[in-house]
This record gives sequence, C-alpha cells and structure tokens, in this order.
Amino acid sequence: MEACRSQMLKCSGGFVLVHAGAGYHSESKAKEYKHVCKRACQRAVDQLRAGALAMEAVTAALVELEDSPFTNAGMGSNLNLSGEIECDASIMDGKSLHFGAVGAISGIKNPVLVANCLLIEAQKGKLSAGRIPPCFLVGRGAHDWAVSHGIPPCPSENMATKFSLSAYKRNKRKMELAEKMDAGQNQTKKRRQSSENENGSGCLDTVGAVVIDSEGNVAAAVSSGGLAMKHPGRVGQAAHYGCGCWAENSFNMNSYSTAVSTSGCGEHLIRTMLARECSAAMQSEDAHQALLEAMQNKFISSPFLASEDRVLGGVIVLRCCRNVEAQPSSNVQSAMVEFLWSHTTESMCVGYMSALDSKAKTHISRLPPGTVPGQSLAIEGGVCRLMGVLD
Amino acid sequence: MEACRSQMLKCSGGFVLVHAGAGYHSESKAKEYKHVCKRACQRAVDQLRAGALAMEAVTAALVELEDSPFTNAGMGSNLNLSGEIECDASIMDGKSLHFGAVGAISGIKNPVLVANCLLIEAQKGKLSAGRIPPCFLVGRGAHDWAVSHGIPPCPSENMATKFSLSAYKRNKRKMELAEKMDAGQNQTKKRRQSSENENGSGCLDTVGAVVIDSEGNVAAAVSSGGLAMKHPGRVGQAAHYGCGCWAENSFNMNSYSTAVSTSGCGEHLIRTMLARECSAAMQSEDAHQALLEAMQNKFISSPFLASEDRVLGGVIVLRCCRNVEAQPSSNVQSAMVEFLWSHTTESMCVGYMSALDSKAKTHISRLPPGTVPGQSLAIEGGVCRLMGVLD
Repeated sequence: MEACRSQMLKCSGGFVLVHAGAGYHSESKAKEYKHVCKRACQRAVDQLRAGALAMEAVTAALVELEDSPFTNAGMGSNLNLSGEIECDASIMDGKSLHFGAVGAISGIKNPVLVANCLLIEAQKGKLSAGRIPPCFLVGRGAHDWAVSHGIPPCPSENMATKFSLSAYKRNKRKMELAEKMDAGQNQTKKRRQSSENENGSGCLDTVGAVVIDSEGNVAAAVSSGGLAMKHPGRVGQAAHYGCGCWAENSFNMNSYSTAVSTSGCGEHLIRTMLARECSAAMQSEDAHQALLEAMQNKFISSPFLASEDRVLGGVIVLRCCRNVEAQPSSNVQSAMVEFLWSHTTESMCVGYMSALDSKAKTHISRLPPGTVPGQSLAIEGGVCRLMGVLD
Repeated sequence: MEACRSQMLKCSGGFVLVHAGAGYHSESKAKEYKHVCKRACQRAVDQLRAGALAMEAVTAALVELEDSPFTNAGMGSNLNLSGEIECDASIMDGKSLHFGAVGAISGIKNPVLVANCLLIEAQKGKLSAGRIPPCFLVGRGAHDWAVSHGIPPCPSENMATKFSLSAYKRNKRKMELAEKMDAGQNQTKKRRQSSENENGSGCLDTVGAVVIDSEGNVAAAVSSGGLAMKHPGRVGQAAHYGCGCWAENSFNMNSYSTAVSTSGCGEHLIRTMLARECSAAMQSEDAHQALLEAMQNKFISSPFLASEDRVLGGVIVLRCCRNVEAQPSSNVQSAMVEFLWSHTTESMCVGYMSALDSKAKTHISRLPPGTVPGQSLAIEGGVCRLMGVLD
C-alpha cells in the first residue's frame, strides 16, 4: 500500500528535511508538530544561508526539535521505568564519515550537541599518550564528558513536562493493572496477552533531520527520549551506528550522496540497521522504487524481525547525484536533490525547506485508510534542484 | 601480505573457534593465552557433546575467556580513566537472528551472561502493557537489570588484577608525562605528536567465539574491557550491533551459515561494521579470497577510516554450506565447515576444536616479518567436515 505525491522546487544553498517522529499524530497534536518542524527547518536554513556546512545546519535543526516540549527528544522526553529521562542521540557527517553518539544520557538539554561535540573532538585525532578518542559514550560518563567540554548540565526535573509526567503516571497505572491481571497466569500466556495491549502513540515520536549544503555535503542526525517506561540504561536506535542516522557523500562507487534519519521502535530499527540499509538502497537508479523495496524487504518482511507481528518505523531520506549538470543558458551548475519519507506507523510528521524558500512546508503523512500499521507502508517525496553546487 | 595454512579435520556434533584478542602477544604471554583458548574450546565442546545448541556453547566459551585474569574481558579487564572497570559484551543467535548486548557495565563478572539473558528474555516476547523488551542496556541500568534477573553482582575491586592495576598506574604516569610535555604546544601539534606514542599492546586483547552446533545453527559472541584509560561511559565494538559479532543461519538468499567475532580498536571496528561486512563477504564462493578482500577493502582501505594511519583489528570467521552432501558409502550426511582468522595487528591468539577432537588446537598468528601493523594483514584457516547435520 502506498500513496504518492511529488513536487518541483527551486533551491540553492542547500536543503533540509526534518521529522518529528513516526507514530500516531492526532489532529490536535498535528498542529504543534507541524510548528516545530517548521521552526527546525528555518533554523537549518538560517545556518545554510550564512554559509554553514551541513553538519552545523543539521545540528541547529535538531536543537530546535529537542527543545520542543511536544517531541520525545530532549525537553519533554518520555520517562523511563524509574521516572527518569535518559536520551539517545547521534550524528553523522557525510564528508568525513565520522560519527558521534550518546546513549542513556541524563541531565543534558540537547543530547545532539554532545554527539556533535564527540564527532568534532574525534576529528582532531588522538588524545594524549596515543589514546583513541571515543565515538560513543553512555550514561554518567557521557554526561560528565559533555560538561567537561562546555555543554551546560540541566537538572532532569526541568526536562520533564506536565505532559510527560502525566503520561508516566498513566503508563505506570496501566502497567500495574496489566501485571495484576496477568498474575496467576503462566508466563507464556502473560507475554502473549500483553502484546495485544501495545500502544502505538506517544512513545515513537523521536526526531531527526537530513541536510545537504551548498557544497553538496550531506549530514544526518537523530535524537530520542526512547520508549515510554523503558528499563533504565536501555539504548535505542538513535544512538546506534547504522540504525538511527546515516550520511555518505558520493565517492568512488557511490554515485549519490545520501542521508537518512529514522524513527519508530528502536529495537526494530536496530536489528534491521534501517538507516544504513536505506542509504545503500538509494544508490539504485529509481529512488522511490528503491526506498519502497527497502522498507518492504529490509524492514516489514525482514528475516531479522520474523517473530514480530507489527514492525513500526519510519525514515526520511535525501539523495543527490554528484554528476552536476551544466545549465546551457548560464554558468550556473545544478544538481538534483530527491527527498522522500516512508513509514509503517499510522502517521509521520515531516517538514522541508530549501535555502531559497521563504518558509518551510510541513506535512502529516498517514497510512491509507483501512491499512494495518506495522504491515503496510506509506511513501511520499519530492525533488528540488540545488543551484551553484561546488564540485 | 598474507600467510596461509590449512588443514582437514573430522568433526561431528559441532565446532568452536575462539580468540583471545588481536593485539600484541609476547612469547611470555603467549603460553597463558593459548591455555585459556584451549580451556574455552573445551568448555564449548563439552556443551556441544551434551547436545547443547550453538548459543549455549558459545556462552560457555566466553565465560571461560572472561574468567581468565590474562584477557581484557570480565576478570582482569583494563581500567578506565577513573580506575574503574566497565565492560562491553554482545551475543547473536544465527537461528533466531536475535541479539543481546551490554555496554559500560560494572560489577558483573561475566558480561556475556547478561547479553545472553537479554537475548533470551527478548525472545519471550513483549513485557507487561505491551512494552518491547530491550536488546541493549548500558551502565547502572544494565547492572541492575542483570541482578534482578538472577546474575550475581561482583565487587569491581575483585575484578581488577595485580596486572591491570599496575598497568593503570603505568598508563596514568605515561599520560601525565605526555600531557606535561605537550603543555605549551598548540592543540594541533599536541594531537599529532601524541599519536606517535600509540601502544598496540595490552589494550586490544578482547575475546570472542564462534560456534556451529550439530543441527547446523551458528552463534557468535564477543566481550571486552575496552581500551585502557578510556573515558568512563565509552562503549566499543563489543556492544555494538554488526560490529563486535554476527551470526546468521543460511536462509533464502544466503547459501552459507556464517558467524564472526572481532577484536581490536573498537572505534575502527564500529565505523567499518566489520563483523557484518565479513559475514556478508562470506556468501562468496571462495571464503579465503572473500575474507582477504573484505579485510583489505572494508577495513584497511575503508573510506570510513581514511583519516587513520593504522587500522587495527582482527576477526575470526566460520561458515558452513547448507547444501548437505549425502555420503555415498553410508547414510551419514555431512557439511563442510570453513574457519578463518585474519588480523592487521602484530598478532592474534586463536583456538579451535571439533566435538570429535580430544583436545583443542591453539595458535598465535603473527604478521609476516617486516610488515607494518595496521597496514598489512595475515590470514589463515582450515576446513572440517561436520557429520550428521540435521537439515
């Protein structure tokens, strides 16, 4: 099952595509989500217009997405089983192919800034006495590293919102009720029955962005508060290499620069390495068909998730051909940027904007009526022309 | 540069290949390393002979490797910058394709048991109220989860050894000296100079194993104390999906069951996803050539490590063809198991044993004289016939 839209935009100086999660967006929530996507696109484009590279622009978009109390990332993240906030985030630079990630980090308002700082520090080379700098830090160690690198701590209680606290209380009651009902039943029966209560709302709305700058560099990032009521210390796809985000400039055998950011059920996205799989698929000629097949064969029907009845996730993808076309009527060079999103969840909120646009476009993509989340998918996208690319 | 050996063994009821790290093994250390590899093989084979599946056998081998005070895993792990032990471990089941991992876990003697327990729990299905069970836990949360699942805590001070404590003091002095010498020099210069002090010894000797059982199922596991003097919270390849270990039974398009475990510099192994890359390469017809090319193109010359002057790591690999051959002279069916190891470090210690062998064979593989670690590789291996495989 798929729905299709496409459009032509003119753009120069870069392009950004963001998501505020694949999950379920009610009409009432939709407005807020669209707003935050719009602001995130604007932040990235402000950077691009000022000459920033893709990495800086994607970080700026993520900070805006994390700062929204409505998204499940940074401020307003889901609370874990102990009522605490622990965040995952990662970032990848398509130019250097460096990667930075933090997992289960508490007390930091913008986890993406720590991931970005790790990436920047690793690019500087080895530490004293030949030690290799880390690309992935977790927990207390990640927090302390961040603070020692100038990222201010933020009391966890300031990151919780009325909404996340009331969701925690509601989930806690629900869990206790479920466990009470299950008491006395055997383990197998318990596990099977519980799986029918699965909620698809609220817990999947992580955030992410993909950017291409005026030099044709790509970058991708992702940030998440993780599943509601997760076990403390649980790390999801947002901190996992190849699973939460992926970015690769074109080189050697890769004709296209590609960038991907994912959202959804972390365990499903980890075990299918969805970000990297979608990036690899994007080297095929037909981007739309390639993404459709990747979502179908490498996600919904993945042998790695054979035991799962519903496979929940979504991706945003962009790609750009390195073969820059000379415009016959001028000296300006251009390159085609194709951008797409696809999801198996009920809905996914996206926004996109080129550096030439006056404002971002936002959209809540929904599965076609009558289709089953976790078994069907929606796929949409568009194209835009990037002018003045340096080769 | 490569060296090559091969041999024919008869085996039935399964086969195990273990490593005690890719790094530098002095002649004096070699004996201890061989001993622990021998014991680990024996443990796995004891399990296989008792009818255990690959997952149980690989776990048994890892426990033995972790328990050795000489290896950098579990007992005797490297100390981090704060003088604490934080371990990474993961395990993958080729049959179910499930994966379990722990990162930066303290106070647990056998991290592989926690990874295995996570995998087993996840296979049982959803938790109460439809929550998805975690596949990856880190830090304090991982420790608490382990204890609540019956794995006994172990005071961290009991896990340090005389050797690891004296190495910590030595490294600390070395670091302080390096930092003192660098003081006054500018950052770039400092970083460049420091990289020349790199030590290749001691810090890379993580452990791992790959197993095939009598039913033809494969499993792989890996465990590590991480780099010496690493930042607290740093997670290396041993906890990273696709990077530390990989196992896939043959199915659909995969003619071969494959299992891989890696060792070496965690950041290099993460950014190249070496375990999964080697597993994918093993679907080619010529296993030896495929591994050689994977190590050369996907590791030493990987575009993901373009900025690294020395790429340090090693892998153990096994594969088995699912096309079971009928023996003309009997009703017994058999399948060919090919096993290989390859490394870019100065040396790598391996052991292997079939369920028919009376004792394990062990070997310290070394780079050919005159070659440069991090730029050259050694590759060796053998074949054995697995009898009585159930199809």
